[in-house]
Amino acid sequence: MEQTSPRWRCGCIDIHTHVVPRDFPAYLGSRIGVPWPSMAQAQQPCHRHVMISGKVYRTVPDQSWDTALRRDDMDRIEVERHVLSPMPELLSYWLDAEDGAVLSRYLNETLAQMVADAPSRFSALGAVPLQDVDLAIKELDYAMHVLKLSGVEIGSNVNGTAIGDPRFEPFFAAAEEWGAALFVHPLRPAGMDRLVGPRSLEQVVGFPGEIGLAAASLITGGTLARHPRLRIAMSHGGGSIQALVPRLQYAWEATQGLRDAIQLAPNSAARLMFYDDLLYDAAAIRALIELVGAGQVMVGTDYPFAIMDREPAQRLLSLNLDDEAAEMLRWRNAARWLAFDLG
Amino acid sequence: MEQTSPRWRCGCIDIHTHVVPRDFPAYLGSRIGVPWPSMAQAQQPCHRHVMISGKVYRTVPDQSWDTALRRDDMDRIEVERHVLSPMPELLSYWLDAEDGAVLSRYLNETLAQMVADAPSRFSALGAVPLQDVDLAIKELDYAMHVLKLSGVEIGSNVNGTAIGDPRFEPFFAAAEEWGAALFVHPLRPAGMDRLVGPRSLEQVVGFPGEIGLAAASLITGGTLARHPRLRIAMSHGGGSIQALVPRLQYAWEATQGLRDAIQLAPNSAARLMFYDDLLYDAAAIRALIELVGAGQVMVGTDYPFAIMDREPAQRLLSLNLDDEAAEMLRWRNAARWLAFDLG
Repeated sequence: MEQTSPRWRCGCIDIHTHVVPRDFPAYLGSRIGVPWPSMAQAQQPCHRHVMISGKVYRTVPDQSWDTALRRDDMDRIEVERHVLSPMPELLSYWLDAEDGAVLSRYLNETLAQMVADAPSRFSALGAVPLQDVDLAIKELDYAMHVLKLSGVEIGSNVNGTAIGDPRFEPFFAAAEEWGAALFVHPLRPAGMDRLVGPRSLEQVVGFPGEIGLAAASLITGGTLARHPRLRIAMSHGGGSIQALVPRLQYAWEATQGLRDAIQLAPNSAARLMFYDDLLYDAAAIRALIELVGAGQVMVGTDYPFAIMDREPAQRLLSLNLDDEAAEMLRWRNAARWLAFDLG
Repeated sequence: MEQTSPRWRCGCIDIHTHVVPRDFPAYLGSRIGVPWPSMAQAQQPCHRHVMISGKVYRTVPDQSWDTALRRDDMDRIEVERHVLSPMPELLSYWLDAEDGAVLSRYLNETLAQMVADAPSRFSALGAVPLQDVDLAIKELDYAMHVLKLSGVEIGSNVNGTAIGDPRFEPFFAAAEEWGAALFVHPLRPAGMDRLVGPRSLEQVVGFPGEIGLAAASLITGGTLARHPRLRIAMSHGGGSIQALVPRLQYAWEATQGLRDAIQLAPNSAARLMFYDDLLYDAAAIRALIELVGAGQVMVGTDYPFAIMDREPAQRLLSLNLDDEAAEMLRWRNAARWLAFDLG
């Protein structure tokens, strides 16, 4: 259990920051043509390329792995703690599960090392090979009990199957039992064939609907009803969840079939989840708070990527919250989600 | 140009109400195995089945075609005018385009007849076979200039292609030139493989993300920039649009590539569209108004289907709007969208 320091109570906890290792080990498995990641120096100073299958997948800044650079940035923008999680594409659910387990282990050890650099400034959420639920539970065990990570990041879907699908039930049971914080991130979003414009719209336009569908699947599939002690957070403010929950609630009240199929009222289930505030708009964040309660929303920025919300402290101020709610968003909710011992 | 009556200024205009004809003509085309709709008596009193390919697609109430029953309901819940549009599945973009044109014509004549029953209580939006843009423009011409409909309903996508795709450009040019009101409705939504639970979640959970992607495609594909006089309304409150627009705006400001690709600021483009208020939640509707302005939001209920918002006048009251904004939502915005002559 992580100890609190007086210091981090002053600034905010940013629960949505990503990590890319500076290097990856060579692929040592037996398969051919595996899309195993590697890193290469970029022309742009202070950046490196993430290479997948011989192509530049993304060019990322040194802050992706360098904890000293991160701490400088954090000090500058009044962020006390980063919750680290892998760049989502690295979750690599499309690898053979054994290869995925090797990659997850490397990510988790990298993350544990970054936390060890400055435990008062960093917490970490690891990776698990969720394409194989048994292997995922084994890696969750290792991440929680050996590496002492706070939990894991999981994708919104695993190779097209939303995380509310019954096949993931044993994983969520283990996460609930072990008190793992779960962070759900969009990955390979639904609706890509509906986008008109440049390729970068995958993240910009595709992610909000994708994370909303993942959250909805946890409501309609019953995961939250079966595991009410699960500490699970939706990234990107839950995306479309604000459009989905009132509609689901209305339909649930109006139709016997939905009440038979869905045990817990959608309104109530939505309030069992945590959410970051990465909606880029004060009115949208306030509407999220109105929907799920001030006790479920946390600061998240997507640091250090191009679309990160650059001034999280200013964003919080722009919400005009009362002192109690502001403190909840700044750090109290995150401390609860991460199961910090507030002593 | 439709004439105003003093009467409809008292109640509200419900811009989202659907029609199913009581019967369809037999299929007279030359193709085999065509999913042409037909109607059959249901066991449930006052209902009929919509049959497609020999199966019950939906069981709908007599209000779907009976204007006298509709007027009774409208009087009871203080709705002055219904804007009629086809049940979206009837848009039938998956038919051969010539068959689709025949079906569109039948729908449009049915709608025109319903308006003729009580022109002071009904306006109508027809159908066009958008799977063939030339045929769609021909039918739009007939619907606007011969049948005097107010415009047409279109799907959020045409066989998987979002409506912001460049192929639909000539259609939107014609709609702008002829002053047609366009009503965009979700249809065969993206993300169906992400749903966990009963089949009815297609509408409940699938529609909000789908209409959001359609709206985003009009922003990112440039349709709204090229046709700023287009009068186009998003159903279901634009669904996920509240999560998409601030994120698009932030990314657009942060990245040169998006500014090069998208001419008009996403914030501004979003304010060129109209939206119904079918979000089932006062906070969500208020957030929509904050995003796009009180001048762009109208009453919409999904009458007469199971998920309809049953008390639109109560819903309006729950928003606590000032008198001017309330009047805009109640009828003024709809009158502008429909190009009523306010004399």
